Amino acid sequence: MTDIDGRLSATPRTTLRRMKEKGHRDRAALFGVLRAAFVCHLGVIVDGGPMVVPTVYGFDDRHLYLHGSVASRSLTTDAEVCVTVTVVDGLVLARSVFEHGINYRSAMIYGQPRWVTDTEEKLHGLRLLTEHVAPGQWDHARRPNRRELAATTLLALPLAEASVKTRSGPPDDGDGPDAALGLWAGELPLVARWEQPATDPALPPTTPVPAHVAARAGTRADQA
Amino acid sequence: MTDIDGRLSATPRTTLRRMKEKGHRDRAALFGVLRAAFVCHLGVIVDGGPMVVPTVYGFDDRHLYLHGSVASRSLTTDAEVCVTVTVVDGLVLARSVFEHGINYRSAMIYGQPRWVTDTEEKLHGLRLLTEHVAPGQWDHARRPNRRELAATTLLALPLAEASVKTRSGPPDDGDGPDAALGLWAGELPLVARWEQPATDPALPPTTPVPAHVAARAGTRADQA
Repeated sequence: MTDIDGRLSATPRTTLRRMKEKGHRDRAALFGVLRAAFVCHLGVIVDGGPMVVPTVYGFDDRHLYLHGSVASRSLTTDAEVCVTVTVVDGLVLARSVFEHGINYRSAMIYGQPRWVTDTEEKLHGLRLLTEHVAPGQWDHARRPNRRELAATTLLALPLAEASVKTRSGPPDDGDGPDAALGLWAGELPLVARWEQPATDPALPPTTPVPAHVAARAGTRADQA
Repeated sequence: MTDIDGRLSATPRTTLRRMKEKGHRDRAALFGVLRAAFVCHLGVIVDGGPMVVPTVYGFDDRHLYLHGSVASRSLTTDAEVCVTVTVVDGLVLARSVFEHGINYRSAMIYGQPRWVTDTEEKLHGLRLLTEHVAPGQWDHARRPNRRELAATTLLALPLAEASVKTRSGPPDDGDGPDAALGLWAGELPLVARWEQPATDPALPPTTPVPAHVAARAGTRADQA
């Protein structure tokens, strides 16, 4: 449940038992992570065991909208899910193997998603999802017709119960006994960037690439 | 169960009900995906609901080795898990919103992991994990001592039941009715690369970066 000051609820499972200092429970941190990625990992229970499927998402202030086709055979109404979004920012290369780690930003969202059946909300969710993953394409491409809308499974998950964990910066053993080893230590950053678009071979190669697509080439995927 | 010709078992849950043509059940495809990433999403059941946590992994021919600390409070012996590894290769920008998609490589591994308690196997698994995530660091950094080994939780998951799904190439609507729209369509590739290493500020800035770290700068994260 979101309370009045916009903080996310701290239920037992989102109260981090480890690395408490890395826990953030404010909505700004959550939306920061959601903006920085577009593929999430959706966890559901199937036949008594966990199943984790990657899928794309979009969001507004209140809901995460997920493409639900991959989960459609398993998700029943009122089923609990856990959606995790992770951005890997690099490696933490410490003086000891034990202190090695990852710089990352990650959000976990818990809740009971519902299937979106209302046509207006489905269009709303699909537009958010499309514009989050591929900005500009909602206006560029042909929008879903009635048949396609009916064939699209969209899940809405309330952004109510979530936790965010991040780690950034250099290794932690720079002022410990291992510093005396004199070993190099530091960070190896990892950045995902969009490359040059590749025109569909079914089109004449001279077909101009739309500006909203061409403009992404070379930009970081984690910066909208 | 792996059978004699090295194919992975096709249990009902890894027999893909959707997009059958994208399913591969051979081990080469699985190891290809495992080599292309180093962070997985581990799905477990906690208090009756799914929980999905990102963690690092390494592997040999028979096992996936996972850092288990994030799951240690929830994982009991014989618990079923699902580990999903996903590499996002880019966007499929089609003529219709409906045909939009993602180019990706993804593996799902199911099974009952065990906690690695044997010292020799723990060192083996940690070395695999370290060398997979940060090649060269097992020899460069100080290796775990007895106390650190005891404090490290490592999971071993048999590479026995798994499925791989991939999608690559241009949109699928190049020969459909929407081709007549004359819209640009194509792929927007996404590539994650290592950046220049950043030396720990606790060290003199002139500390030489080891060759095995410096050599990664500019290379793709999905190519070992």
